[in-house]
Amino acid sequence: MRTIHVIGIGAGDPDQLTLQAVRALRDTDVFFVLDKGEVKSDLTQVRRDMLTTHVPEGTYRVVEARDPERDRTAGDSAYSPAVGDWRSARADIYERLIAEELGEAETGAFLVWGDPALYDSTIGILEEVRQRGTVDFAYDVVPGISSVSALVARHRTGLNRVARPVQITTGRRLAEGFPPGVDDVVVMLDAHQAFRRYADEDMDIYWGAYIGTPDEILVAGPLAEAAPRIERLRAEARERKGWIMDTYLLRRNPERP
Amino acid sequence: MRTIHVIGIGAGDPDQLTLQAVRALRDTDVFFVLDKGEVKSDLTQVRRDMLTTHVPEGTYRVVEARDPERDRTAGDSAYSPAVGDWRSARADIYERLIAEELGEAETGAFLVWGDPALYDSTIGILEEVRQRGTVDFAYDVVPGISSVSALVARHRTGLNRVARPVQITTGRRLAEGFPPGVDDVVVMLDAHQAFRRYADEDMDIYWGAYIGTPDEILVAGPLAEAAPRIERLRAEARERKGWIMDTYLLRRNPERP
Repeated sequence: MRTIHVIGIGAGDPDQLTLQAVRALRDTDVFFVLDKGEVKSDLTQVRRDMLTTHVPEGTYRVVEARDPERDRTAGDSAYSPAVGDWRSARADIYERLIAEELGEAETGAFLVWGDPALYDSTIGILEEVRQRGTVDFAYDVVPGISSVSALVARHRTGLNRVARPVQITTGRRLAEGFPPGVDDVVVMLDAHQAFRRYADEDMDIYWGAYIGTPDEILVAGPLAEAAPRIERLRAEARERKGWIMDTYLLRRNPERP
Repeated sequence: MRTIHVIGIGAGDPDQLTLQAVRALRDTDVFFVLDKGEVKSDLTQVRRDMLTTHVPEGTYRVVEARDPERDRTAGDSAYSPAVGDWRSARADIYERLIAEELGEAETGAFLVWGDPALYDSTIGILEEVRQRGTVDFAYDVVPGISSVSALVARHRTGLNRVARPVQITTGRRLAEGFPPGVDDVVVMLDAHQAFRRYADEDMDIYWGAYIGTPDEILVAGPLAEAAPRIERLRAEARERKGWIMDTYLLRRNPERP
């Protein structure tokens, strides 16, 4: 039977690979790489280096495919359906890759930045392909260090305060309002710096971009002071590199332990 | 200057160590082990095996100390103060260990199960020791695979649904009510199976105990059906091993992707 590993490869630092992930890499015959047609060539290079460092040459193949375009122009209410269309288009590609590029006794892998459990579609898409029933395969998931874990480790703080909850959410949701019932909120996928809306409130921010890479930028402090600095650093970095990947923790009414 | 590594060592599977964690282990002169006087001897053994597997013999020392007793009898409202007292008592011990057991140019380490960022006190206690100013040291944090990541990887599901938030909270808080504004909730530190309260609601549960170890138990399904099974398995396992460590994800009104 065909086997697929969904491998979390950490947030950007190649040393964040787990031993389990290294084993899974070595166990893989075919790596599937979905090319988003983007300029994140540093990340592509890090991923390539991971393979050459950990997997003996000549023991694997890399199969590349073009990622479907995602309709990011759709409004808020249409967000989920647009994602649904995109997932189905991606499922078509996965289905074809698994059926045509992977031998019946072979093992394939999808490498996922961070942890496949957080804001990543790979598991959901593989489930969709399985439910179609056109190609038979087993799969497992190797957890990875998420950008969330990497962020707070670099800032040497926790996600939650003692006995209190933490929420992980998106920039889009934070822009709609501060989540109820929590004071510690991690924000991912925020292209519009939704934290600016809260600059008048008594909050701390722990922000990081390109975490774990040579380009890493970290800023922490009271939001009112940090927000303009983050805006500037973020714009400069995005301009310089052509892309940015950042995450942050907002901590309301800090009661320091 | 004295240096301390706070090293996340994963949720129980020794292969969940990252390469960064292995490097930090090898870089350590003195491992500090806080003995809780408990019977989790399997975990103690796994930790000991990690050292013998990854660190050359004779290059390190292990210093053990007795953990202060934590007052778990205090009521809900007293929870945080009781934790505060316990942390100060623990800070006294850390302070003494660093000052007396670590040479001025040496590197010490605290090994933390899971990820030091989630419901772990090590970082907060080290900050308290630093603020006392009696012993000078630098420290860094190596993120680890949390039991949360390990749980959902084993269940091959994500933490969040598409574009939606997830909250991580405690059993004590879940017992007070389902968190507002989220449908996906991860529960840690639940000694009283607070999920039972929601067995009449349309939820799925993804539960796991001793995740990543040979004793691992996984149960997933509609809460109404799974709850009695989890109760039984949990009681049996706890009786058999003398301790239990479990975590779960509650997913309300499942709209499967």
